[in-house]
Amino acid sequence: MAKQARAVATRQQIVSAAAATFDRLGFERASLGEIVEASSGLTKGALYFHFKSKDDLAQAVVDRQHTISIAAVEAIATTDASALEQIVMLCHEMGRQIVEDPIVRAGIRLTLEFSAGTTPGKPGPYQDWIEACRHLVETAIAEGDLLPTIEPPVLARFVISAFTGVQTVSNVLDRRADLEQRIDQMWQFLLPGIVTPDRRPDSDRIRLARWIRDPALA
Amino acid sequence: MAKQARAVATRQQIVSAAAATFDRLGFERASLGEIVEASSGLTKGALYFHFKSKDDLAQAVVDRQHTISIAAVEAIATTDASALEQIVMLCHEMGRQIVEDPIVRAGIRLTLEFSAGTTPGKPGPYQDWIEACRHLVETAIAEGDLLPTIEPPVLARFVISAFTGVQTVSNVLDRRADLEQRIDQMWQFLLPGIVTPDRRPDSDRIRLARWIRDPALA
Repeated sequence: MAKQARAVATRQQIVSAAAATFDRLGFERASLGEIVEASSGLTKGALYFHFKSKDDLAQAVVDRQHTISIAAVEAIATTDASALEQIVMLCHEMGRQIVEDPIVRAGIRLTLEFSAGTTPGKPGPYQDWIEACRHLVETAIAEGDLLPTIEPPVLARFVISAFTGVQTVSNVLDRRADLEQRIDQMWQFLLPGIVTPDRRPDSDRIRLARWIRDPALA
Repeated sequence: MAKQARAVATRQQIVSAAAATFDRLGFERASLGEIVEASSGLTKGALYFHFKSKDDLAQAVVDRQHTISIAAVEAIATTDASALEQIVMLCHEMGRQIVEDPIVRAGIRLTLEFSAGTTPGKPGPYQDWIEACRHLVETAIAEGDLLPTIEPPVLARFVISAFTGVQTVSNVLDRRADLEQRIDQMWQFLLPGIVTPDRRPDSDRIRLARWIRDPALA
């Protein structure tokens, strides 16, 4: 049992080192040697024991990122915020994860790199986020916050797309230093066009909704 | 003179071959050998005569993409469309360029790749587009189409960011087959929140504004 726990810890250590390396160098330039170097104290043998190839490692990083994303969605769902506030919270939480968590950054970079070529892209994080957002849009319409004419999959896709572009351009132009502010501006422009007339006076309050993580989980 | 014209043509041929290769493989995996192969009939000697390195070639592709972007902005400015319609036209034209022109796709891919690492990104296409859009937002406010409370640089930045994400996610999930429709949906959600109350009834007409290129220039 202790042996198994050690194996899990080693595997996690490898995935973290791989994520840091993919985040820094991208898939092509990252070598298994670099990944071993990025992990403190691992050997190439240990790495090969757990993962067959660089592709395998990349998949493990993307899977881990998926788990992190879903955990945030589920945690936000347990708050008593309205579904529309939860969408705003989710965008800010995705922004925080990208800024603070190399596994999330690496997952996004790998997804982009795999889809930049001519082979069909792996949906990766986008599909997760769109699906979570679609579900919240449906609830927000039922709660009378979003216009009933909105098609949930279409708005969900646009929210995640707009978020993706906001974080991409923020990275290119400002190394994401202004990301939180740019996400806030996105909602400033978007909310007035999608909320019901009843909720328009509440737009500023909705825009400022934030999820505060339990510090015990940080 | 004929010699100079031939040199210009050769240079353009090299830049096109480089763009096709960068678009397909990305900067890291693209080799000068691949680029020579992608150009029909060029030699490695001709390539080295015009460009010192792969970095040089990448810069030439990004510069060429800049020229193409600016030309579209200037052509759209000569139409008698309102500034707000020109912003819509510009987004659809950027979308068309990304789908149809490997130089534009390569320019965007290189800009993203150069900015994905830890070195500060080259602003590249984003800065051009934001600047063109900012100018149009200012005019659209003066023309009474956009709300006077809007800060032009902030909306311009968001429009280009949202467009960037729409095309990125469309590429990852649908190889950009649905890009035009996704750009249209973006304006469907965005326009009601940014136009003046007077213009709200015209939203659908504004959304459908398209620039038809002079077929002689195609």
